[in-house]
Amino acid sequence: MTKEIQVNLNHIAPVVSETAVTALMPEVADALSKIHNATGAGNDFLGWVDLPTRTPASLVDEINATAADLSNQCDVVVAIGIGGSYLGAKAVIEALGDSFAEAKPGAPRVVFAGQNIGEDYLFELQEYLRGKRFGIIVISESGTTTEPAIAFRLLKAQLEEQVGKERAKDLIVAITDAHRGALRQLATEEGYRTFVIEDSVGGRFSVLSPVGLLPIAVAGFDIKALLAGAAQMQRATINANATNQAALYAAARNALYRAGKKIEILVNYNPKLHYFGEWWKQLYGESEGKDHRGIFPAAVDNSTDLHSMGQWIQDGERTIFETVLTVGKVHHSVTIPTDEANLDGLNYIAGKHVDEVNKMAELGTRLAHVDGGVPNIVITVPELNENYLGQLIYFFEKACGISGYMLGVNPFNQPGVEAYKKNMFALLEKPGYEAETEAIKKRL
Amino acid sequence: MTKEIQVNLNHIAPVVSETAVTALMPEVADALSKIHNATGAGNDFLGWVDLPTRTPASLVDEINATAADLSNQCDVVVAIGIGGSYLGAKAVIEALGDSFAEAKPGAPRVVFAGQNIGEDYLFELQEYLRGKRFGIIVISESGTTTEPAIAFRLLKAQLEEQVGKERAKDLIVAITDAHRGALRQLATEEGYRTFVIEDSVGGRFSVLSPVGLLPIAVAGFDIKALLAGAAQMQRATINANATNQAALYAAARNALYRAGKKIEILVNYNPKLHYFGEWWKQLYGESEGKDHRGIFPAAVDNSTDLHSMGQWIQDGERTIFETVLTVGKVHHSVTIPTDEANLDGLNYIAGKHVDEVNKMAELGTRLAHVDGGVPNIVITVPELNENYLGQLIYFFEKACGISGYMLGVNPFNQPGVEAYKKNMFALLEKPGYEAETEAIKKRL
Repeated sequence: MTKEIQVNLNHIAPVVSETAVTALMPEVADALSKIHNATGAGNDFLGWVDLPTRTPASLVDEINATAADLSNQCDVVVAIGIGGSYLGAKAVIEALGDSFAEAKPGAPRVVFAGQNIGEDYLFELQEYLRGKRFGIIVISESGTTTEPAIAFRLLKAQLEEQVGKERAKDLIVAITDAHRGALRQLATEEGYRTFVIEDSVGGRFSVLSPVGLLPIAVAGFDIKALLAGAAQMQRATINANATNQAALYAAARNALYRAGKKIEILVNYNPKLHYFGEWWKQLYGESEGKDHRGIFPAAVDNSTDLHSMGQWIQDGERTIFETVLTVGKVHHSVTIPTDEANLDGLNYIAGKHVDEVNKMAELGTRLAHVDGGVPNIVITVPELNENYLGQLIYFFEKACGISGYMLGVNPFNQPGVEAYKKNMFALLEKPGYEAETEAIKKRL
Repeated sequence: MTKEIQVNLNHIAPVVSETAVTALMPEVADALSKIHNATGAGNDFLGWVDLPTRTPASLVDEINATAADLSNQCDVVVAIGIGGSYLGAKAVIEALGDSFAEAKPGAPRVVFAGQNIGEDYLFELQEYLRGKRFGIIVISESGTTTEPAIAFRLLKAQLEEQVGKERAKDLIVAITDAHRGALRQLATEEGYRTFVIEDSVGGRFSVLSPVGLLPIAVAGFDIKALLAGAAQMQRATINANATNQAALYAAARNALYRAGKKIEILVNYNPKLHYFGEWWKQLYGESEGKDHRGIFPAAVDNSTDLHSMGQWIQDGERTIFETVLTVGKVHHSVTIPTDEANLDGLNYIAGKHVDEVNKMAELGTRLAHVDGGVPNIVITVPELNENYLGQLIYFFEKACGISGYMLGVNPFNQPGVEAYKKNMFALLEKPGYEAETEAIKKRL
């Protein structure tokens, strides 16, 4: 059994005492009960709760086999999806990948589409794919969400043109509803391989389902270890007590919010975690930002952003707290060389590993921010690998469910996302939106 | 004379009326007077104000010639810098570059270093550069800032090892103080080509100086047009009246802040503007986040983030406003194909350009957000090219100076950035920090 990621609340005083956090444990217990007994709002979206332990080995094998087949046939695989059908895979692939290489040796490059409506983006993607051996993973429960549907129409046509319709169907994998919807129907008619999006697993909780697992496996990473880490965290976050790290985090952030800390900044000191921050923002923002409440989630990449948002964090309005992801060890070794002239004055750290300096930047920053009135929650991740990322993903999902119930919202819906879509359909005169079209035209 | 970017305040009511914005014009006039007459706090950092019009053509020619020379000799150029010595160039290069190609045809790939202390990042960069024809632009006023100094030590040693010390000096360009500092001294001793960082141009206002211009020129973009756009905006933002777009924006955002809108979200509908958002966050966060006040700057990339932060923006705490960058026209043409089966139901938009759909997503979102209680400032940029980016950069810089003075802070310092550095030096036992080292060790 590997170590677990740990939450440290030593640095949230004096705003919130540990006693105050402990005092919230009855609320945590209530929230956990709602999650485990499906008695809270949104209880038809709890499929993620035991996903790590109930995912059959046969499904993992099938995903890996499909990934291996795509790898053999493709130099590039386009993952088409938006929201949770994009950010989870993107976050894991960026966290585990090389900063400069396009792909892991032996694996295809995974690029993303359908996460925007950029005409130039799609044009440039099509140019990039021209003549290349590429495949498509299309991810959509309905098959009709505008952004991925546009991208898939374009890229499906391009693939069929490049390799012929017969061969194209072997290069397209659909991840969609088990029975219903446009993409399921198309996949059946065309004979695509498919994986299932369960009704009970919402988009932002789907990275540990085939939605995230297939693109991650295609990129060459170990999804068994990812699930094993998540399963370990699933088992460790059942009880409402101080050993449940997700409970501690959920309680602490609610206590801070109630004390007037309105913005939570997820902080990393590793550029590979940038998209993990983006995934986390969706998870928390979409789960909690409703009924005119919820912590505003933001993220920074340090030390880069110490020379950007750092000033605001140190000295701006005292309405923020930070949650710091501290990664124990790095994978490679670079030591700072000695320089005879020493004009830059760095010889005092010559011979040190770069990460030793990074760790002192991190510790120095935490002290400075706490001194400046910014409470810090610290989450220790021993290393960036599949196992710990699996732990971290499940940790944040579980804490999000708890936290949302403590806030008093339904953490599993997203009614606000429909507002722009309704207007967009009205403006585009979509069939069925005639009344809305008339109303919006009058308004403009 | 090209068109100018325009600010539209029609959508900030009912929170703030246009009359309320106009009522702030005396404050704007006072702030503009401080900027133009150098009578406000930080008045030794106003070199950016007339930078576009006073930059001599000879300097631009010299930058372009240096860029052409690096282009001829290198396949990759590493720009080493942090904060303003990183974000401006990165923002412009991303805005103008291809989404998938590594570089513009005929130009080297520009990669960045010294903007973090990532041991894995630096290891992977060094692996990537091994055997490649690469050059270095090192940007630091002092030459001793920890992050870029570490990166430069490592990459200078690597370059000298790969091509020899004699040849390496022709592949390194230093942008630094005119007379003082470690990097100036090193450049003189080694015989590097250099460009000057003026004392009066602070990092976050430096993108239109050689700091930003050289990497942008190396990447193959037209810095003359960038400066011309900025110069046009410089001339258009002198007077405190309603034709001064920077004045309008500064007044509106201060009015919204005073009305309780604590978070400003810069919104784009073009993935290429992601780093422009990062540049903007530094500009405003570092200029205004002090004395326990200042708007918290955040940014989203839509429609991607409509499926992430969109829920929070639509329904979360009503303490936010948005500033929407709307880009008039795209560069390429992609139309949505017709599909006979029409399972995805998209045939109602078949034949349309992708950007037409994007524009309806944008308009639909703005209406939905305004309806949801989120005031929207809209900034119209006719097209993403060098000229309009130059306009936009100067527009935001000028508005930032005005806005900071209206807020009552010194917009041109960043005292909070020193706090983490002091602790880091103490923890690393830097010579000269003996007392701080002793104090911080006692504390831990």
